[in-house]
Amino acid sequence: MLSYDPPVADYMFLFKELIDLDKHRHLRGFADLDFEVIEAVLTESGKIASEVMLPLSASGDREGCTRHPDGRVTTPSGFSDAYRAYAGGGWAGLAAPTQYGGQDFPRTFATAAMEFRSASNQSFDMYTGWGESIAEIMMAHGTADQCDTYLTRLISGEWSATMGLTEPHCGTDVGLLRTHAVPQPDGSYKVTGTKIFNSGGEHDLTDNIIHFVLARIEGDPPGSKGISLFLMPKLLRDENGRFDLHNAVSCGSIEHKMGLKGSATCVMNYDEATAWLVGEPRQGLIGMFKLMNAIRRRTGTMAVGVSELATQNAVAYAKERLQGRALAGAKRPEAMADPLIVQPDVRRTLMKLKSFNEGARALLVWSGLIADIVDRTPDKAEGAAAEERLALITPVIKAYLSDEGFNNTVGAQQMFGGHGYMAQTGVEQLVRDSRMLAIAEGANGVQGVDLVLRKLGHNQGQSAFDLIDEIVAQLAANRTSTPSLSLVEAMAQALDDMREATTYLVGLGSRDREAACAGATDYIHLMGLVLVGYMWLRIAEAATRQIKEDRDESGEMAAKLMRARFFAERMLPETSLRLTRIKASADSVMALEEQWF
Amino acid sequence: MLSYDPPVADYMFLFKELIDLDKHRHLRGFADLDFEVIEAVLTESGKIASEVMLPLSASGDREGCTRHPDGRVTTPSGFSDAYRAYAGGGWAGLAAPTQYGGQDFPRTFATAAMEFRSASNQSFDMYTGWGESIAEIMMAHGTADQCDTYLTRLISGEWSATMGLTEPHCGTDVGLLRTHAVPQPDGSYKVTGTKIFNSGGEHDLTDNIIHFVLARIEGDPPGSKGISLFLMPKLLRDENGRFDLHNAVSCGSIEHKMGLKGSATCVMNYDEATAWLVGEPRQGLIGMFKLMNAIRRRTGTMAVGVSELATQNAVAYAKERLQGRALAGAKRPEAMADPLIVQPDVRRTLMKLKSFNEGARALLVWSGLIADIVDRTPDKAEGAAAEERLALITPVIKAYLSDEGFNNTVGAQQMFGGHGYMAQTGVEQLVRDSRMLAIAEGANGVQGVDLVLRKLGHNQGQSAFDLIDEIVAQLAANRTSTPSLSLVEAMAQALDDMREATTYLVGLGSRDREAACAGATDYIHLMGLVLVGYMWLRIAEAATRQIKEDRDESGEMAAKLMRARFFAERMLPETSLRLTRIKASADSVMALEEQWF
Repeated sequence: MLSYDPPVADYMFLFKELIDLDKHRHLRGFADLDFEVIEAVLTESGKIASEVMLPLSASGDREGCTRHPDGRVTTPSGFSDAYRAYAGGGWAGLAAPTQYGGQDFPRTFATAAMEFRSASNQSFDMYTGWGESIAEIMMAHGTADQCDTYLTRLISGEWSATMGLTEPHCGTDVGLLRTHAVPQPDGSYKVTGTKIFNSGGEHDLTDNIIHFVLARIEGDPPGSKGISLFLMPKLLRDENGRFDLHNAVSCGSIEHKMGLKGSATCVMNYDEATAWLVGEPRQGLIGMFKLMNAIRRRTGTMAVGVSELATQNAVAYAKERLQGRALAGAKRPEAMADPLIVQPDVRRTLMKLKSFNEGARALLVWSGLIADIVDRTPDKAEGAAAEERLALITPVIKAYLSDEGFNNTVGAQQMFGGHGYMAQTGVEQLVRDSRMLAIAEGANGVQGVDLVLRKLGHNQGQSAFDLIDEIVAQLAANRTSTPSLSLVEAMAQALDDMREATTYLVGLGSRDREAACAGATDYIHLMGLVLVGYMWLRIAEAATRQIKEDRDESGEMAAKLMRARFFAERMLPETSLRLTRIKASADSVMALEEQWF
Repeated sequence: MLSYDPPVADYMFLFKELIDLDKHRHLRGFADLDFEVIEAVLTESGKIASEVMLPLSASGDREGCTRHPDGRVTTPSGFSDAYRAYAGGGWAGLAAPTQYGGQDFPRTFATAAMEFRSASNQSFDMYTGWGESIAEIMMAHGTADQCDTYLTRLISGEWSATMGLTEPHCGTDVGLLRTHAVPQPDGSYKVTGTKIFNSGGEHDLTDNIIHFVLARIEGDPPGSKGISLFLMPKLLRDENGRFDLHNAVSCGSIEHKMGLKGSATCVMNYDEATAWLVGEPRQGLIGMFKLMNAIRRRTGTMAVGVSELATQNAVAYAKERLQGRALAGAKRPEAMADPLIVQPDVRRTLMKLKSFNEGARALLVWSGLIADIVDRTPDKAEGAAAEERLALITPVIKAYLSDEGFNNTVGAQQMFGGHGYMAQTGVEQLVRDSRMLAIAEGANGVQGVDLVLRKLGHNQGQSAFDLIDEIVAQLAANRTSTPSLSLVEAMAQALDDMREATTYLVGLGSRDREAACAGATDYIHLMGLVLVGYMWLRIAEAATRQIKEDRDESGEMAAKLMRARFFAERMLPETSLRLTRIKASADSVMALEEQWF
């Protein structure tokens, strides 16, 4: 059985030390924020995560979901009660607009609640957290009536939402979809088709489930230009205004998966189901892209959460498990053996996990703030710049964090030896659950193409160069504040690598898109390392400040500087390897004919 | 459902081109070997793997093993029949001595059969392959009667074997074991204790199961110096000479695991079970270590097998699945989309898998030959040198191949997108099954300590420097035969990195064992890369020779050179990163007190 201590203190450190709140008071919802309220929200969200959701994670994995012959899907025991606690506590609307009943808590801070929830129970988490994302689509593209009817109930958690995107023959290439919609005289549509990989397409947590479905209106052009977005409730309103008419949407089966067994992944059949257009016809992907980007960043958050949970438990095991002796001589001669944590390779692994988790968590906060600026600034120029930045880093946050978060669950599992392979220890479930993160919401390979061709391509890499400039400025500050830290020189090198890689890929991409994309995954990882390194620069500056001001009573700030050093000396040098690969000839990737694979 | 085409042709290429058989005719069993016989054996072993074992892999995973209330354990449906086919075909004794009914097929070639078997069904494979390993222990340490009685039946496959090592409180640190043995007047012992993680400790494939158990004879000293090895049959001989008396050994439960569900992992209770000493008292670890080393190399073979199976299926999917368009313009404009394999990141991933599999397979053959020299040469000096070499590379083969084999199953799974996460596709099982390889038979972190402290330490790195010298000589040959291949320069750099790392670690290890071990895992990976690169040098030389001699009708040799190039340009540069980490200060690993983890 795993235990979990939500990292509230770590978040509060980041909020207090890395974000100058007074510089952001002009953002909507930031004016009256104070740290006491934020800490109270985090503490409560941590409690529901560790006390309500975590205990259902292993049992949910064992029990899984069940589809009954009548098409009903039941979630694992306890999920219904947990959902009631979640919705009843107002968590479904934490970051959603107050206009429809939400609490409008900025993402900068709400990210913490998201991490705690996904760490404690990733399967359960898949049913939640739709409020703010759906609000964005509906407030931008929906009608007032749609917002009043549906959004309010989604934000209260009374109803839940699900996305119908993938079809058996098309995932990434959504333009191939076959689900089609026929306009009806009353303005509604009849939608027919089959969707797969529909997380929470059917379940027993809420009475109504609102399906957001991509489909092609009859007669619209093939490909992605002909795709519209529809709202399709499971339950329709009857003549008395009650939602108790079953729509022609049904779950044909649920998938048996590697992990996330508590999350119902449904095959959904629409058989002339009633639906309403959201936004303009053939503009379905516009709203969906914004939503997808939010979900991609959320995927990064989930990865940090599961990595944190795995790390906490690996650390605990390494301290408890007595096995072998310290190489420099017994540390606990009175015991039958020393704890595993005296072993260098165990420490190396745990330092890797911890230095990732802390730096990546700062990245979540920093990117949350950028997303908040996009949504909440009255200053158009500031908003546009933030949007540019957010577009650049979104694929990195999705892919780099999900790759490394998964790797970290594997690293944590390794600390348990043979016990880590056994189900009862619990950590193997984290490997299985987190494996999905690199696959779903746009497989990581696709994120690389997005970054290298779209995000670098549209302005000759200017967004990336702007980011480099910002980090260079931070580095200059660190040369004053933390001059002796090895992170300073390591980041200087990493930034050189990123600049060279960016210049190279921008040039190459304009001539040969395939060659550029042969290095796309390496570029994602290069930028991910630089971003986490950037966060460590800022953390190190803050920690040094606290130490100088005699505020490091516990010694945690000194420990942070050691983790910064680990990241600098053992993780950051990877940027040079990534650069070497990026600059390698694409021939060894592209030249062989298909038959030689 | 996965498909599998055993790489017989690839092995035959390696046998014919990389091994100069005539230089090894003096080895026992090599005199009359010819390629026709070898190919026939490989073809047959491939057939039983792909036709008999593979079809039971997914069903075995779903069904798992069952422990019945009476303590019996049943394996998944079909395993019994498959075992009969395996034993009936004489495969249990393929590499075992003829003296006891084996076929004495050298490991150099038998490795292929081992790879095919583990690729097709890793769970099933766990029950098999004991013949040759047990033969080594028993012929060296057992009595003639023990060999006659037990070894013959193990080699015929009539009976099976299992190892009782791990206890609930001790895995790696076997010296802590509590199982104890009390001598009896008739020369036997009564053994009492509990073992865990006992693969195949109980099952229904054979009537009798021979347990090889580590225990401490009453009164013997604590720690690893007091450990003896016992032979403990499940069924004892009755007064009529029939083996039908149940020994006091029983299965208390079986584990629920992440994968390998068709393999029964048992908790075994010995309750004054009758057992006989194998070898001298308190010398139990000597025999066990030799066995463990063979099993560690076998683990590397299993990793290559599962990586090959995953790769073959990922390649097939990438060629079939139509999704998206080639970045340089549609490749199949008449179809709804192009196959995934036109995408650079898909190709990059598949080239990585294939360049690993091929090079790693050559490494299995090469190390199999070294093991054969140890066992089969009449020349003592040659045998001693081979033993030194084998000791050096064993931890690398175990840890590097298992780490990368697992990573490759993850990479292959990624090619399937969301479908790869679903059980029915089959590839997620490979991720779960292969995850065990880095954990079992000495977790990979322990392999690093073995390499850096023991294998480098005992002769100041001379074994490693000898290996470097051998590769330098090969490199000189390649400078003539394949001068334009980028592999030549890449290997020169990689060898420099290995030499520098070795010198550094030998020096550091003599002063500060903990600091040296902070870089142990990196050193394992560095040497693994160099070894696979070495194999690619030899493959490239052979391929170039075939091309020059107009023997490359199919074009496969030219494709091999491209895979060599991929390995050189995109994999080998990792040695420099590994060196950087090895030379990084150990402070960031060792300095923090336990409380800061």
